Amino acid sequence: MRSLYVIKIGGTIIDDEAKLSSFLKSFASIEDKKILVHGGGKLATKLAQKMGIEQKLIDGRRITDAETLKIVTMVYAGYVNKNIVAQLQSFDCNTIGLTGVDGDIILAHKRKHSVIDYGFVGDVDAVNIPLLKNLLDQNLSLVFAPITHDQQGQLLNTNADTIAQEIAKAMSRHYEVNLIYSFEKSGVLLDVNDETSVIQELNWNEYQKLKTPPRTPLGDGGKIFAGMIPKLDNAFAALNSGVKKVIIGKAEELEKLMKGTAGTTINND
Amino acid sequence: MRSLYVIKIGGTIIDDEAKLSSFLKSFASIEDKKILVHGGGKLATKLAQKMGIEQKLIDGRRITDAETLKIVTMVYAGYVNKNIVAQLQSFDCNTIGLTGVDGDIILAHKRKHSVIDYGFVGDVDAVNIPLLKNLLDQNLSLVFAPITHDQQGQLLNTNADTIAQEIAKAMSRHYEVNLIYSFEKSGVLLDVNDETSVIQELNWNEYQKLKTPPRTPLGDGGKIFAGMIPKLDNAFAALNSGVKKVIIGKAEELEKLMKGTAGTTINND
Repeated sequence: MRSLYVIKIGGTIIDDEAKLSSFLKSFASIEDKKILVHGGGKLATKLAQKMGIEQKLIDGRRITDAETLKIVTMVYAGYVNKNIVAQLQSFDCNTIGLTGVDGDIILAHKRKHSVIDYGFVGDVDAVNIPLLKNLLDQNLSLVFAPITHDQQGQLLNTNADTIAQEIAKAMSRHYEVNLIYSFEKSGVLLDVNDETSVIQELNWNEYQKLKTPPRTPLGDGGKIFAGMIPKLDNAFAALNSGVKKVIIGKAEELEKLMKGTAGTTINND
Repeated sequence: MRSLYVIKIGGTIIDDEAKLSSFLKSFASIEDKKILVHGGGKLATKLAQKMGIEQKLIDGRRITDAETLKIVTMVYAGYVNKNIVAQLQSFDCNTIGLTGVDGDIILAHKRKHSVIDYGFVGDVDAVNIPLLKNLLDQNLSLVFAPITHDQQGQLLNTNADTIAQEIAKAMSRHYEVNLIYSFEKSGVLLDVNDETSVIQELNWNEYQKLKTPPRTPLGDGGKIFAGMIPKLDNAFAALNSGVKKVIIGKAEELEKLMKGTAGTTINND
């Protein structure tokens, strides 16, 4: 099986022109098949402020009303996506920028929740594997903005980590998939304030111990930063669905993450 | 040769939800291969106003400074493009939304002009025919926002009529191409204030007479509205480069335009 890298880029790097450009240069140099999934950084929030639209977050997820959906569609699918593609083209990496609505690549439904109304937020139902495979077979790299649709004409805002995970899982039927979550941290840290405390390898049992609060019988837990838990739950879910390897680490160290000499590698042992 | 429709939609219809939806329903029902090229309507101007950015036009062409480029990329490639694609998906028309930077489909260069600095405006150099053909062969319809790139990482704002024309010309090697310019007028009018004065067929000689000012030896000219002249010049250029037929007319009458029972058909006799 051929290798495929599915790389999520998130955090503040999207807003840092020099760091983003250096990351994209590393991405462009990957010789295997590759898919990049990005968010929108702080630009969406800044634009909303300029337009006088109030933003709401619950558990780190944006509540997406109609105006916010408009903004994220403009910023993620328009500005950020097309600028990333333009840069990759300049590095001789022929790339196509997409959202889930394009080619019906990611079908979703509006989230139903008994208490919170998340607004126009989509949970993924299906990935159009043949079209993704065909595009990759044409030596195109793919860059996804985290927007999906419901087949009824409604765009939906979808968590970029989830999109990366769903694409990685779906494509693992045809490729040996490496899923990389890259952001501003060096990896999964034992101490959130100490960038040198990176856990190099993490398996399911270790993860259970580390995330369990310290006063319970398992002892030394509670060490994993709460904000990291959805990312790690996603990582293990991906491994359980056929993804070969999940790596979490600093976007600036992409080449080292791929070699396993930086970041945290998640195993399913 | 198979038929391909390249349809430009412009004017105020982009801003009219009901008319746009009805147009897209007609577009979705076309059984031949099809490509839609759109502008951004008044939304780009409105957003610029909200953000306090002044817009400049020369000869109907936007002067694109860095801030304006950001806005048109957000509005055209983000909001308008993805909403059109979502609607087409709801009409069971599998569609992919693109700009010229995606897959290096439309390569351009920043316009050089001895007097006017148009800013980040692109003139088209090349169309990636094999990729367009491959996408169409997968039974995808394509929707283009009028943004191109220069292969050096720079996005460029490009006239949507020109994009439609360049795609139509390039694809005429592989398809029998019908190029339709649809907007809010009923066609090329003899009297700009009379929607019933549509010229049903127009050839090159007729066009020369009608656009020549009335006090010159050719006599009864000056009847074609100045704003229509770049569109007609584009139309004849397309015919000279292999496009089979150019039709100009009202977006709401798409089906009639295709049958030749409405609008103006441009011939190269």
